[in-house]
Amino acid sequence: MTVVDPAAKLCRLGTHRVLEPAGALPQTAWKLDATAVAYANEILCDVEALNVDSASFRQIVEACAGDEARVRAHVQSIVRERGKQHNPVTGSGGMFLGRVRAVGSALRERIALREGDRIASLVSLTLTPLQIEEVTRVDMAGGRLWVRGTAVLFESGLYAVLPDDIPDDVALAVLDVAGAPAQVRRLVRPGQTVAVLGADGKSGILACAQARERAGPGGRVVGIAPSAETAGARLLVKHGYVDTFVAADAREALGVLAAIPDALPQLADVTINCVNVPGTELSSILCTRDEGTVYFFSMSTSFTAAALGAEGVGKDVTMIVGNGYSKGHAAIALQTLRDHPPIREHFIARYGTPAR
Amino acid sequence: MTVVDPAAKLCRLGTHRVLEPAGALPQTAWKLDATAVAYANEILCDVEALNVDSASFRQIVEACAGDEARVRAHVQSIVRERGKQHNPVTGSGGMFLGRVRAVGSALRERIALREGDRIASLVSLTLTPLQIEEVTRVDMAGGRLWVRGTAVLFESGLYAVLPDDIPDDVALAVLDVAGAPAQVRRLVRPGQTVAVLGADGKSGILACAQARERAGPGGRVVGIAPSAETAGARLLVKHGYVDTFVAADAREALGVLAAIPDALPQLADVTINCVNVPGTELSSILCTRDEGTVYFFSMSTSFTAAALGAEGVGKDVTMIVGNGYSKGHAAIALQTLRDHPPIREHFIARYGTPAR
Repeated sequence: MTVVDPAAKLCRLGTHRVLEPAGALPQTAWKLDATAVAYANEILCDVEALNVDSASFRQIVEACAGDEARVRAHVQSIVRERGKQHNPVTGSGGMFLGRVRAVGSALRERIALREGDRIASLVSLTLTPLQIEEVTRVDMAGGRLWVRGTAVLFESGLYAVLPDDIPDDVALAVLDVAGAPAQVRRLVRPGQTVAVLGADGKSGILACAQARERAGPGGRVVGIAPSAETAGARLLVKHGYVDTFVAADAREALGVLAAIPDALPQLADVTINCVNVPGTELSSILCTRDEGTVYFFSMSTSFTAAALGAEGVGKDVTMIVGNGYSKGHAAIALQTLRDHPPIREHFIARYGTPAR
Repeated sequence: MTVVDPAAKLCRLGTHRVLEPAGALPQTAWKLDATAVAYANEILCDVEALNVDSASFRQIVEACAGDEARVRAHVQSIVRERGKQHNPVTGSGGMFLGRVRAVGSALRERIALREGDRIASLVSLTLTPLQIEEVTRVDMAGGRLWVRGTAVLFESGLYAVLPDDIPDDVALAVLDVAGAPAQVRRLVRPGQTVAVLGADGKSGILACAQARERAGPGGRVVGIAPSAETAGARLLVKHGYVDTFVAADAREALGVLAAIPDALPQLADVTINCVNVPGTELSSILCTRDEGTVYFFSMSTSFTAAALGAEGVGKDVTMIVGNGYSKGHAAIALQTLRDHPPIREHFIARYGTPAR
């Protein structure tokens, strides 16, 4: 199946697949060439399922008045028109699950991936050339479509080989936030105090587990979330993934301020923001000591709120934009589940789809 | 003049000045108490001038059909209603110039500031209690109002004592972007390669000068801006503040990519983004080597464009949110002008107001 087009100047970012407008990169392009071949620096996959990102799926379901047949047709029409599942209204995509059909000739020497391997893409569908022959099933609650089709990964594209020992759904839920635990491993040093905002959610739990491990017996992990009664919060406290749990809404900076003297008397060396709602920048900054680090993993973060917030309270902190990618992030995230059976059980209960 | 209200629980962030809504911080509050006294942890100043931020001033001028008398009245009415110059349409403020009238009793031991010192506020007017008795003059082009009035700085508030050897206007222009040169000093190490996007603007020039100094003879500074013909670009090249100048528009990622092999064969260890237009995140990421650092100083930065951009091209870079404040930033920024006469001349030609 591997066809190399000798005329095309192959680009590691995939610009050779951009049809319009000329000069765009795949993500900003309106239309990609989704021809089902693997050029020398590409990987061609048979797609099993698309996980459409939740903002995009909600918009599509609303536009289709909740009708499953119309949702199928809507997604197929986007993909036919753009050569990618790039929702023109929300601007967002998702990821795919599939099986490798062909590895380009120039990549075969350099990567271990082989025909038949099952993978999940870790780059957005907004830049992934995609063809859909048929949509066979739609999970209207979870935003997943089972399809027959093909997708292309560029040389710069990220993917993870799906593990045998973790159910697909659970692996996907973990891979979706893989940047968080990997970055926490990198940032936190033994003996440090770490505050995790949004501690009881998907990325928050993985971040707490990694922070606890890295901070060690001389360090402290403080989890912050609106309620101590969620399953995630109970898990963190029961199994000691946090040393202290603070029930506070990170959107209410004054409430967080009031909780700080007890929970974080010296403030945090490193604060990890995993809150998936806007307006929590200032709380994150207030939790952090002077010359400490705030890591914003949440996509709800406002750049200006962070920059002006720190200036407004005169706090000299290093604020880091959560990069969805860091080396080895998929392996670190999945290993967190293997190393911590209570977290694994929690994720299976929460994100595993019952067999159908 | 110093009056301490023993009933008020004084807060270093100034929440004791919030009138409504209860529980808000000064910046998010609708209305502040601007009473002209210095509580124990405050500094009271006689205001000479307000520098209204450019987005806010443009909106006000438009709303007033360019009429100076209406602009005066409009600003006075905002300040009367809110107790601060916080434009309700744009959400932005500005800074003030003034002279210290009183330093609160609890601060006198801890800070060197004294009655009579001339200062510029380095926190936004959106959180600064302000009263205006009279607007005496308006610079309709520059967005400055000369006033008689008072302002209050909180314990957490930032300010800079105005230097004797640099004209006010030039000092203000420099202080406005003081975070950039200070952060460059902190980030860049000898021998490194530094790329500065938006190199020929106000923050870009100061960033290049500091990068050149820190990178040293074994390092390289590459300036990037759309045209090599601007006064700023010529200055950088003529005086060696950059080793290489690249004429490229940072919004065009492919154009930047094309220039990289010659200008940045090994890519940059540190990239500083000083471009004041949206859409330059990906170019910044593409200029940077794996495991390098991107510092986004521009307020036009989109958090999601940065986060998803790095993931989309599979680049493991540390991306930092430009904090308007870091320790000693005002002194470092002003010293950059003193150390580099060509930059000083450029700033005086560009930002100095002719005497009137």
